[in-house]
Amino acid sequence: MEVLLLGIGGMMPMPGRWLTSAVVLLEGRATMFDCGEGTQVALKKSGFGVGRIERFVMSHLHGDHLLGLPGMLMLMTQAEIEQEVEIVGPPDVTRWARGNRDLLRFYLNYSLRYTDLEADGGEIKTDSFTLQYLPLKHSTTTYGFALIENERPGKFSLAKARELGVPEGPLFGALQRGESVRVGDREIKPEDVLGPARRGRKIAYATDTAPCKNVYRLLKDADFAVIEAMFLNEEEQDAAEKRHLTAKQAGRIVRESGCRRAVIAHVSPRYRWEDLQTLETQAREDCDAIELGKPLERYAVPLPD
Amino acid sequence: MEVLLLGIGGMMPMPGRWLTSAVVLLEGRATMFDCGEGTQVALKKSGFGVGRIERFVMSHLHGDHLLGLPGMLMLMTQAEIEQEVEIVGPPDVTRWARGNRDLLRFYLNYSLRYTDLEADGGEIKTDSFTLQYLPLKHSTTTYGFALIENERPGKFSLAKARELGVPEGPLFGALQRGESVRVGDREIKPEDVLGPARRGRKIAYATDTAPCKNVYRLLKDADFAVIEAMFLNEEEQDAAEKRHLTAKQAGRIVRESGCRRAVIAHVSPRYRWEDLQTLETQAREDCDAIELGKPLERYAVPLPD
Repeated sequence: MEVLLLGIGGMMPMPGRWLTSAVVLLEGRATMFDCGEGTQVALKKSGFGVGRIERFVMSHLHGDHLLGLPGMLMLMTQAEIEQEVEIVGPPDVTRWARGNRDLLRFYLNYSLRYTDLEADGGEIKTDSFTLQYLPLKHSTTTYGFALIENERPGKFSLAKARELGVPEGPLFGALQRGESVRVGDREIKPEDVLGPARRGRKIAYATDTAPCKNVYRLLKDADFAVIEAMFLNEEEQDAAEKRHLTAKQAGRIVRESGCRRAVIAHVSPRYRWEDLQTLETQAREDCDAIELGKPLERYAVPLPD
Repeated sequence: MEVLLLGIGGMMPMPGRWLTSAVVLLEGRATMFDCGEGTQVALKKSGFGVGRIERFVMSHLHGDHLLGLPGMLMLMTQAEIEQEVEIVGPPDVTRWARGNRDLLRFYLNYSLRYTDLEADGGEIKTDSFTLQYLPLKHSTTTYGFALIENERPGKFSLAKARELGVPEGPLFGALQRGESVRVGDREIKPEDVLGPARRGRKIAYATDTAPCKNVYRLLKDADFAVIEAMFLNEEEQDAAEKRHLTAKQAGRIVRESGCRRAVIAHVSPRYRWEDLQTLETQAREDCDAIELGKPLERYAVPLPD
């Protein structure tokens, strides 16, 4: 499980600073969160191919989070991808995406489907994870997300398997996969030899928002999070008016939610790189688990045990 | 009069290669031709402010020529521009632009108007130039453009003015501005002291197209042109199928139309910079007036005499 951070910019693409977007890679398949103007260029720079992206999850209807999507869909036709692609977002975003598909009349050589998010939040289940989403507090309908890997089977107990007379070999594998097996005239069930199911990893993506309960819920015990911190602490009033977070607020959310590691994104274009060092320092005052996001970095998210 | 070339890429934005777009600056006001994804980043890199752009001229409904427009319009709100802005394009492009304005519901703090191009070509007149447009030969309705500066007044003849008894001073300026003046009881008209009107400069912008009569018409005697040459000569068949030009074809058009200086743009993303050197060499085989466009270069277009 990896998170490829494509950019950490907010508001508009800038020379040398791509807009905030993150790709979560799990079991060879990828989900991209947000896709602003220029994200396809950042993706090409990263060397990550579009052939693995099966889903775009869009947080809200602001240009800096979605204007790169039509070009990305066109690129996927050029790249001759083989997978079906899903666009997930609030209804106004999927309406915009459909509208552009109609107005631009561009050719797609793959199947595209749209999934509307429900107003109060909800879950989308896939073969390998559940995508939770909850409304955030921004100037337009905006969602934050938690991608939660499916539970993994419990640990296999060699001692218990031997005790129950299961011969070493293919039957071990079957039990580990969750299948019952027969040994003589007895049925051995997976739960007889497996420990309790182990939790999957959790990744949160939360931007753009003022402090709110749901951002804590999404980051709760997350293994990794992309969180916005658009402003320095000095700009707290500006942040409140525009419904964004300051560095300190982001650090507090990460610390209090028990998130294990978080990277800062969606920084204001007014800041130069040296200001961003200050922003990181401010966020880390009360929280060791937060750091400034590194564009084009692939963050490994290790298994919990 | 200057042409700021923002990019020379075709098809999709690439790391280090912005999509084809050019800004023509005349009398402090600017017209941008095409605005693909990422063009606003190239513009920021160039240092050219959006406060002078009063018009976007869009060639056709392909993503690589227009997907940067919504973000550019949003940027102009952030920049608090003061001018009215016009979007000029084929009806399907203005429909797309309007549709995005509606679907994205973004805030604009300036006035925006749309001008549809007529199917068979035509002219748009402004205070300082005429924009001619003609249909090109591409896979969708596409226009090429010639921006023709208004005629300048003829040269002022000091000898004639003295002969007619006009005293040096403010009356000279009035005559130069095209106003009649009185000297004693005689009326002196501007044409009495001015030579014939001098032609304005002509700039052509022509992409995407296969060879066709209209591209010759647009480049006819132009002082400067941005012309596509998407493919090396070896790819002539590919170019014909996709309705684009090869290097040799572009060179021939520039030479035969009497264009004084042309820069190549809209090159295929398949080519690396060393291939582009070859492409330039091929274009220049029969034509000294063509060269590879330099991204972010500001080309001065000198007065004809």
